[in-house]
This record gives sequence, C-alpha cells and structure tokens, in this order.
Amino acid sequence: MLSTMQDEPLSLATLLRYASTFQSEAKVATWTGAGTRVLTYGELGRQAAQLANALRGFGIGEGDRVATFMWNNNEHLVAYNAVPAMGAVLHALNIRLFPEQLIFVANHAEDKVVVVDATLIPLFGKYLPSLKTVQHVIVANGDASALEAPAGVTVHSYDELLASQSDSFDFPVIDEKSAAAMCYTSGTTGDPKGVVYSHRSCWLHAMQVCSPMAMGLNSQDNILAIVPMFHANAWGLPYAALMAGADLLMPDRFLQPDPLLQMMATEKPTFAGAVPTIWTGVLAALEAKPQDITHLRDVIVGGSAVPPSMMKAFQEKHGVRILHAWGMTETSPLGSVAHPPAHVTDEQAWEYRITQGRFPASVQARLIADDGSVAPNDGETLGELEVRGPWITGSYYSPDGSDIDPGKFHDGWLKTGDVGKISPNGFLTLVDRSKDVIKSGGEWISSVDLENAVMAHPAIAEAAVFGVPDEKWDERPLVAAVLREGADVDAEALREFLADKVAKWQLPERWSFIGEVPKTSVGKFDKKVLRAKYAEGELDVINLG
Amino acid sequence: MLSTMQDEPLSLATLLRYASTFQSEAKVATWTGAGTRVLTYGELGRQAAQLANALRGFGIGEGDRVATFMWNNNEHLVAYNAVPAMGAVLHALNIRLFPEQLIFVANHAEDKVVVVDATLIPLFGKYLPSLKTVQHVIVANGDASALEAPAGVTVHSYDELLASQSDSFDFPVIDEKSAAAMCYTSGTTGDPKGVVYSHRSCWLHAMQVCSPMAMGLNSQDNILAIVPMFHANAWGLPYAALMAGADLLMPDRFLQPDPLLQMMATEKPTFAGAVPTIWTGVLAALEAKPQDITHLRDVIVGGSAVPPSMMKAFQEKHGVRILHAWGMTETSPLGSVAHPPAHVTDEQAWEYRITQGRFPASVQARLIADDGSVAPNDGETLGELEVRGPWITGSYYSPDGSDIDPGKFHDGWLKTGDVGKISPNGFLTLVDRSKDVIKSGGEWISSVDLENAVMAHPAIAEAAVFGVPDEKWDERPLVAAVLREGADVDAEALREFLADKVAKWQLPERWSFIGEVPKTSVGKFDKKVLRAKYAEGELDVINLG
Repeated sequence: MLSTMQDEPLSLATLLRYASTFQSEAKVATWTGAGTRVLTYGELGRQAAQLANALRGFGIGEGDRVATFMWNNNEHLVAYNAVPAMGAVLHALNIRLFPEQLIFVANHAEDKVVVVDATLIPLFGKYLPSLKTVQHVIVANGDASALEAPAGVTVHSYDELLASQSDSFDFPVIDEKSAAAMCYTSGTTGDPKGVVYSHRSCWLHAMQVCSPMAMGLNSQDNILAIVPMFHANAWGLPYAALMAGADLLMPDRFLQPDPLLQMMATEKPTFAGAVPTIWTGVLAALEAKPQDITHLRDVIVGGSAVPPSMMKAFQEKHGVRILHAWGMTETSPLGSVAHPPAHVTDEQAWEYRITQGRFPASVQARLIADDGSVAPNDGETLGELEVRGPWITGSYYSPDGSDIDPGKFHDGWLKTGDVGKISPNGFLTLVDRSKDVIKSGGEWISSVDLENAVMAHPAIAEAAVFGVPDEKWDERPLVAAVLREGADVDAEALREFLADKVAKWQLPERWSFIGEVPKTSVGKFDKKVLRAKYAEGELDVINLG
Repeated sequence: MLSTMQDEPLSLATLLRYASTFQSEAKVATWTGAGTRVLTYGELGRQAAQLANALRGFGIGEGDRVATFMWNNNEHLVAYNAVPAMGAVLHALNIRLFPEQLIFVANHAEDKVVVVDATLIPLFGKYLPSLKTVQHVIVANGDASALEAPAGVTVHSYDELLASQSDSFDFPVIDEKSAAAMCYTSGTTGDPKGVVYSHRSCWLHAMQVCSPMAMGLNSQDNILAIVPMFHANAWGLPYAALMAGADLLMPDRFLQPDPLLQMMATEKPTFAGAVPTIWTGVLAALEAKPQDITHLRDVIVGGSAVPPSMMKAFQEKHGVRILHAWGMTETSPLGSVAHPPAHVTDEQAWEYRITQGRFPASVQARLIADDGSVAPNDGETLGELEVRGPWITGSYYSPDGSDIDPGKFHDGWLKTGDVGKISPNGFLTLVDRSKDVIKSGGEWISSVDLENAVMAHPAIAEAAVFGVPDEKWDERPLVAAVLREGADVDAEALREFLADKVAKWQLPERWSFIGEVPKTSVGKFDKKVLRAKYAEGELDVINLG
C-alpha cells in the first residue's frame, strides 16, 4: 500500500531558498584579522544566484564538478550552496593534501572550475598547470591577476564576475539521490578515495546535526566553524546552520589560538567545532592569558580521540562542555556523539563523555569479530565497527564504474577500519585501528591500550606496539620502546610494571628498545616501517616468553 | 551523477530496532489513576515482536490495516510500533468520532484487526457489528469476555495472545514510501478523508519534532503525551520519543485537570503536548490549588489558536513556556512552531510567540491571493495558505483510485483552507478559514477579527460574522450579534465602537440581532446555518450603508 504523502525530494536548492528567505536575517561573518565581513543569508542567496548564473555561463550543468580551494569564509559558503543547488557537484579541495594527492583528486574528480582564495594563489598556482580538466578559475578575496593562467584556463575575479550576473536563478529541484558534493579521504596508503554525498544525505545529515542528540543547533546559535570546509563538509555545520537559521562565524586563515580567542572575545560564538589539536592550543593560550569563554555552550570535537584531561580542563576551568564525537569522511561525517544518558551521576556521565559517543537512530552499528560473526554489544567484546545508514557511503567514486577498494564494504555495511566495543546502550569506545589490533589466540589486544600503558612508565619517552607472528597464538604483541634521555629500565621491569594494568594473557613477551618511533607525515606512528624492520630482522628483540 | 551513499530506506522497523536496543533503558509509563505501569523500550521491542507474530498468525501481511481504539497507553505504543514495523498499516481510530463517521472510516480503511482498550468496550461494542472487514479484536487492559463477538469475528485477550508468541520477529525493511499509518480528518462536512503516512514521512517528521526548531527532544526528556494518539499521530511525539530515547508518560483515560496534575506531581514530565482546552482547565485547577510545575521546560499547544492570555499566565505565574504550533492531519501534523527569532526583546518575542509559528526548511509555504497569484510574505497581505513538503499529503486515500476532494490540491501544494499572512522571516499568522473570509472589493476581511472586535463590546455576549452578496463590493460582512442579558446597544453605536479598531473599509453596514449563534457538535460557530437563514430572508437585517 502506497502512502498519500507528497513526493517532495530533499534538496539543497530547497534549503538555499529557505535560508535566503525565511532565515534571511541570519548571517555568516568572516574574520579579517581585526573584525568581520558579514553576509546575511538573504545576501548569500543573491550571491549564490549570481555565482550559479556565472557557472551556467561557463557551461556548467547537472553533475559537473566545481571545486573550491579555500579557507572557511563567506565566499566558500556561497559556493557550498550555489553549486549543489544548481545541480552541479561541489568538490572542496583539501588545501593540505600532498601535491601529488591534490593533483590526483582534482583530475580524478574532473573538476571543471575552481574557486580559489587569493591568499592561496602561491600554493594553488603550483598545482594549476597539472590540473587537466580545469577550464575556469575564480579568484575570491583578492587580486586575480596574481594567478598565472596556463593555456586553456581563464582566470576571473569573483567580485567582478558576480557583479555582472543577475541575482536571481531558478534553482532546479532534482532527484534527491543525485550527487551534491564530494570529498576525498586522505588515506596514508594508496590513492585518495572519493565519497559522493547526495542531496538526500546532506539534508538528513543536517537534520541530525541540528538534533539535540548531536549538536542541538537553533536560530539563537552563532557557530564558530573552525573545522575546515574541505574536511568532511566541516562536519555538516554549514548546511545545518542554514537549516537552523543559526549564524556562522568563519575564521578564514586565522587558525592560531590567539586570533581564535580574539574573534571569540568579539563575536561571542555559542558553539564551535574543531579537532583536538586546535583546542589543546586554545587551552594553553587561555592558561597564559585568561579570557571568559562561557558564551560557548558546547564545543564539538572529533577527528581523533580527545584526551579526557582536556575535556575536564575546559569544563572545570572554563565552564565549557566538550562533546566528543566520532565520524569519518565516509559517514558524512556524523557517526556518534557522547551525550551521557539520563539518570546518571556526574561521575558516571564522565565515563560516557570520554567514549566516542552514542549512535543515533539513523546510524546502524555492529561489531564484527575475527571469525566474521557479529559480536555482542556488551561493552566488553571487541570487534571491527561496521556502520550503515542513509548518509554512509556504500562505495567509492569510480569514473569508469570499476570497484574501488571493495574490501571496505561488507554486505551493505561500511567497514570502518576501527576496532572497539559498544555498550548495551549504544556507546562506542574505540581501541585501535583494525590493521593494528593484535589477534592472539582468538582474542584481540589493542595496540593503543598497550602503548598507553607502557608510555605511562616514567622511563619511557614513547612506545609503539604491533603484532608479530607467533606459532602458538597466531600473533603476539611486540613493544618497540624509546627510553627517555638518561633513563634506564629493562624489559622485565616494564613487564612487571604492566602486570596490574593489563590482563595477564595480554602481557607482552617481546620487547625492543629503539632510538625513535618512525612517524608519518602527519606525525602518527608509522608501524608499517617497524613491521618491515622486524620482518627483515633489523630489530633487536628480547623475548621473555 | 549519482552519489555513492548507501540506499538505506527510512523505516519504522529500524526505529523500533534502535529504540529497543540502544535506547532500551528509556521507558513508557501509563497512569493508572494512582501510579504508573511501566514498559522499558527493551520490553516494548519484545511485546511488539509478540504482537507482530500474533498478527502474522491472523494472516496480516504487508499493507493490511490494523486499527486501534485506545487511550494513550503502553499497549497502544506497542501497536503503534509493531504494526508499521511488520509492514502493515496502523489505523488509530478516533474514539470521539460520531458513530456513523467511526463506522465509515473503519470500513473505508478496511481494517482487519482492531486492538481495543477494555474500558472502551461499551462504546466499541456498539460499532463492532457494523464493521464489515474486521476479523479479529484484541482486548487490552481488561476482560476480553465483556465484548460480544459478531459472527466471523474472534475476540482475543492482549495478554494471553502475546504470552503465546515468540518475543523476536524479523521486522522487514520495506520501501520507505510504503504506507506506515493512516489517519482520517474529522471534517464538519462530508465524509472523513484518509491521509496515509509513509515510513519516510514518519521518520522525517520525527527528526523535525526532535529538532530545537520544534520541540527539542532528547534522552533527558520525559514527555507527557496528552494529545491523543488517534489525533494526528499524537503530533508525532511517540516516534520522536523513540528516536530521541526520551521517556513517555501516557495519561490513559485520566484527562481531567486533577489527575493530570497528580501525575505531573509524581512523574515530573519535562515536556507536554495538548490542545488549548486541556491547558485552560489545568490553569484553572492550578488557581484553585497551586502546584509547582516548573519541571515542564516546554509545553506545545496546537489544534486551535491559543489565547495569548493563557500563554502569559503559564509563563508569568508558573514559569512554563508554551510553544504555539500549527498543523493539521494532512501535515503529519507539524507545520510551524512559534520560537521567536534571535536578537529580539522580550516584548518583541511575545509578538512572535502568539503567532502560529515559523516554518522549518522541510515545510514550504506560500499564500495564494484571491486572483490565484502568489501573495508576498510581507506580514500584511492575506492569502490562503498552501504548503508542500515530504510529510504533507498530496492526495486523500482512495481504495478505488478515484480522486477524493481534488480541490484541496493545487499544483503539487496542499490547500490548507486557512487564511493568513506570513512575515518576511517566515512566521505565520492565521486570521480565518478560507470558507469564512469575506472578499470585499478585491480585499479580504477576516471574519474572526471582526467577531473578536465586536465581542469586545460589553453589551455583546457573542457575535458571528459572515459574508453576504453585495452588488458593488461582491461581498460585505454581516454581523449577527447576541446581546448580553439586560444589555442594550444599537447597530450605530456598535459601528462607532469599531471605528478605531478596524480599517474604515472593513466597517460592517449590515447588522442583525439574534437570540443565539448556532453551533456545531463540537461547539464551533455554525455559519452555514446563519448563511442559510440569511438566504431564506429569515434574519432581520439593519443596513447602515
């Protein structure tokens, strides 16, 4: 039996029309270093129409990719809305990608137009000659003439281009499963992989971002979006702000603690989102120079695990609640947010707040054990996290229809590559990446937990733990430890130190003392290198087994 | 270009699975007159599985209608979830319909099973012999043997039936546009008309109900759902509570002010929803016997316009915020909610709070002027409200595919039959029903506004205003006024009294003094009767024109 409901698609064109009319008084403000440049959502709608008219003039039609290479600012928000609303596909380029990755993703996505911030021309200009499909570059917020155009590429000034266009555009309402935006994962191995969001997924995700189970946004909010718009859609904050009629505060290129605190002092945002390293810096700056930041009712933090000590410092010293969240580019990114459940004590609430958060109804989650069975959500059993839902990717973008990395998908679920446990009431605690977890006699050992336990010893500067083959147990952990300068400790003493910190069967037998843990370009432990050294017999290993 | 997102349908089966696992600690509690009967969402999931197994045993399959004839209680919530989750269609019968309407809707919907509260058997028993398609009746909360079964109908005890069933059921995930639930409008003229909600519309509507722009529900809430579950899905509260992991408090048949206040004193709900008459009664009871009700953070009120004086009394005397909302069965029902915009004074906030509310992004709204053109949203121009969106009906249910009341639909929009104005920032103010608005010389006059203005005169007990044909202006208002006992005033004095209250061109020339305004069965002014009397020349009319 069919329903009688209207067949109204979820559409970013509808969202733009809504925000620019019934929420026309809300505004986006971009920090200039000393104050803000402001665009009301009414003006945003008119600029979006001008940009859409200009893009149509370039021949951009439904499904064509239009890229941005920008900081978080007013003009980026215009492109964010104009491009999907006209039926084209927004591709926010990550300005921090390695050059070869940046060139790969722009060519792979076949970007036809790029909107670039003038301050990023020195960087973008180096890539432009290698971008094979780009025909037009629009330079915003500065002098377009600073960019040298290769043959076949026309460079435009954003302001001049828009000034010559009509500020009305009949944004089409298209199938809700059509592409609206795309984003590439910046994996450490292999080529970046593209995720293509739909109008439907962006709309549903924005509704969830607004939900009290997530960020609880409303028209009274002023949202400081520090998380870059090229990083998993700035966690959905831009579209959610338009839906809620909330103000947006954009930091542009001023991402250091001092300017962030200065814009907070002036603009008094009520909500903010950024990765942990930003907040570590802000916390240190606040120590040096105290400032009232209680205008922030909530701060959402994700991207990597948040140290509980930082959450407590924000709460206790500054009266600001940090919401820990988990997600990834493949999940739009909102997966789970750590709001404690009802009827718990303050102390119990903290135990929930330091988890990766609780799943909402739209994100189905399960754990897969080593033998492929579904593990129970008992808060103890470890498994690889798999998720499914309407804003979770079911594949990676493939221009020729070939399967890209099909091993990431399992029976309609996304394999996240994260290993953790889920409590009966739906809270996720991650313990490791699946490639790093150690599979010992049918049980899983978290390399991260062992590393943290070893690094708690005063003589240890850092330690990386990885699994090595073992005849009896399949795999056993090997600890590669770096001593602090002048410190001295042996493997027996370290093993004894761990005895009351980890389960007995997890205690490592194999130890190696090394000079330094190899790191990736973004500073993470590079266990690939250690594994290779071990395989080549280049590590001195003490075996206490 | 297609997105890479998973093709995951929005489904009440997914919602039930979610609530009964990750929100299994949340609960629904039903008032018994002295305390509560409690069902956790975990238990709800198991009972829903048992009910689904029993219904499958009756041969109920995808698309079959299963009705309820119940108060708001635990067992009603079980049916609310089990029936759509198994792919069948929930039809909550309005126990207050006139007998012939009740029989019409049950037969029109072809209900095969009815779940009935034992306390309603005296009422339901009278209808049952006329229900042509019903094969099974399940009696909850009392003795099933009290119901006499006509030939072809089997009567079951809810408890006994469920006890014999497995508490697990593999709820199917079906097309999101499939029917999940249906509801009939109880129009004052003609047969009731059916609206069929989809899994998609219920899910999206629940997300919106949870949004801070609407009710802002979260897992800390305990929601007192006074609005009946047979009345436009209890405004979406049941599914929203499951989505938010909020507790539900159900009043069963205890709907008088005293028991409502008693359950509030015991259960301390944080949120409540009911029509204005309920709150008028509660307010009077609180005057007589004060009670702290500040545990209520918000109360949502809709169904008919809320007197501003009542909103202010709740806020100022009891510290409780009333949210005025507008919607109808055809809109699931959430249309607009009156949260004031940002950056307004308290006084300005009140001007917004007494409107019918602001539209969210999912509900598109426009006004249609008398000439069929779209009227501007300038906060002044009147027009008939038309709405569209994913939880708004596009037709009425028709078993044989024939068009039912096609005049209610206009180019993909629902004609609401309400006349009002919309401010530039999306706030709706209704002034009249479209059938009652007076069309005078191309301008519209609100009959309701004129009635309120006339009734403000101390000599007037009540007054009904309706349009009568006029050669020059097409239509002009006629005031049918009832004098207070012993009072005396003439038409000239009344017209003078209005002079500084309404625009000069709206001042009525035609006046008639009558003994009583005819009323409908639910107490509304029945202007049909007055119009007929006028046409028959049965009204004494003074014409000052």
